[in-house]
Amino acid sequence: MLSNLDLIKQCDKFPYRHREPELYESNVASYYKFQVEGCDAVLGWLLPSTVSKIAWPSFWIVSHTVKMVLLTGTSIAVRDARMAETLLAARGNFQVLQKWRNERFPVYGPGRQLLLSIERAASPLFGIMIYGVHMSAYVAQRAANKQTYPGMLDNTVGGGVATGEMPFESIVREAVEEAAIPEGLVRQNAKAVGVVTYFDVRDERAGGETGLLQPECIYVYDLPLPASLIPRPEDMEAENFKLMDVAELQTAGKFKTNCALVIVDFLIRHGIITGENEKDYIEISARLHRSPEFAC
Amino acid sequence: MLSNLDLIKQCDKFPYRHREPELYESNVASYYKFQVEGCDAVLGWLLPSTVSKIAWPSFWIVSHTVKMVLLTGTSIAVRDARMAETLLAARGNFQVLQKWRNERFPVYGPGRQLLLSIERAASPLFGIMIYGVHMSAYVAQRAANKQTYPGMLDNTVGGGVATGEMPFESIVREAVEEAAIPEGLVRQNAKAVGVVTYFDVRDERAGGETGLLQPECIYVYDLPLPASLIPRPEDMEAENFKLMDVAELQTAGKFKTNCALVIVDFLIRHGIITGENEKDYIEISARLHRSPEFAC
Repeated sequence: MLSNLDLIKQCDKFPYRHREPELYESNVASYYKFQVEGCDAVLGWLLPSTVSKIAWPSFWIVSHTVKMVLLTGTSIAVRDARMAETLLAARGNFQVLQKWRNERFPVYGPGRQLLLSIERAASPLFGIMIYGVHMSAYVAQRAANKQTYPGMLDNTVGGGVATGEMPFESIVREAVEEAAIPEGLVRQNAKAVGVVTYFDVRDERAGGETGLLQPECIYVYDLPLPASLIPRPEDMEAENFKLMDVAELQTAGKFKTNCALVIVDFLIRHGIITGENEKDYIEISARLHRSPEFAC
Repeated sequence: MLSNLDLIKQCDKFPYRHREPELYESNVASYYKFQVEGCDAVLGWLLPSTVSKIAWPSFWIVSHTVKMVLLTGTSIAVRDARMAETLLAARGNFQVLQKWRNERFPVYGPGRQLLLSIERAASPLFGIMIYGVHMSAYVAQRAANKQTYPGMLDNTVGGGVATGEMPFESIVREAVEEAAIPEGLVRQNAKAVGVVTYFDVRDERAGGETGLLQPECIYVYDLPLPASLIPRPEDMEAENFKLMDVAELQTAGKFKTNCALVIVDFLIRHGIITGENEKDYIEISARLHRSPEFAC
């Protein structure tokens, strides 16, 4: 069985500069920086193979010497239009763009200033930070045996946070759409409990090109439910709600990999995984809250 | 008023390698690595001024070329005795050693293998990771105005985790000793909720030599109390228990600086500080859970 740290490593794959400086620096030296006119910050990293497969229109400044692609334009509207035009023209050249979603993901500069939006499917091509929401529904009762947490539902609710959306509104929408949890119940009881941040490198499981960079921030919510209110598939159109114990939860194959991170974070916050029973407790905590490489 | 991020920066002072690589690397290049025989890991960093004020006995290998102090000896008992002998001889040369505590702090190698212990007062001389515990007692009631959290007590319980101690046993001991909270109440209701990790550089407020390196890991506990059980100074010998709202809590001058970190973490986990009301939410989360430079 995978350890909790193994579960984290399935998502937080990019090297840490202070742990593996040579590997980190040689990786970063190979990337092209994504920048926009008028902002010094690096917003993401592109692989050379990505740069070579895009026919960069003249409103881009592309330098193979300093390894940079810089989008000109000084308003959000102009940058959005130019990014969209660039991506639509490149759509045939990338597997990840075959899953075009018509969802706009935000790119922030320093001070959380919105700089532009990028089609969701294209986000790993530019290596930008993306934002999601995730909610764990659970019944707040402790088992006699603390090693089990029988009240946690195996079906967590999650999705992306689009440009202009507040995280809490995203989770309300996802809870209603994905799991038919009543909106009022979510608004009343869902509790923001932090973020989980990590830096993924896409592999076969993600689909499309491999090696693309995908730093991610998940806004995490807990939804405590009274036992009488456990959603049931038969009356709520949800796919599957089942109370699980920790051993079941830790069987990672059943989950989309980043769900495992949210679950480990849940188990830490709820006193199930502790410094006494988990030798990698401190490293797990740090890797669930990785310091982002880019403004966010 | 200090922002929440300002509060974090008062404790998490050491530069991040991926944010300020030149500053980080020039700092680190100036330090002496602390190592022990038979283990490749760097366990801490010493300032050159520290190295020059210790008369290193012959059981140390001191290299000014590779900037390293390496303690020989292949058993914990031998290393402990040699470290104690070294520190006792140097006691007159350091202000921080004037507060000798006779408390032994552990130094772990990779895989959390205990390598030796160091007198608590000497830990910043070697720049080792130290471990503490902190507990927030609160009354689990939400205010109508979510911006206030009236149930939090201003007197949190905290202390160091000595060699051989489990974090939970430390917090039980501190709660009884410091705040006269009944042991049974703590054992029954205290919940482990994660760790807060940061990297401090000691300044005037810490006392003693400035510039000493002090990475720290705090095991964090919540203690939910029924309203009827709020500890009161008059009957429990506690110094001061007072319900506070968030504005009061955020007046940092009242707290030992690292208490502010535990409080910010509490407010995040309890949905008071959110992505909607705190622009630095993600950076704060990351800096409260800094990836340690050393094995721990």
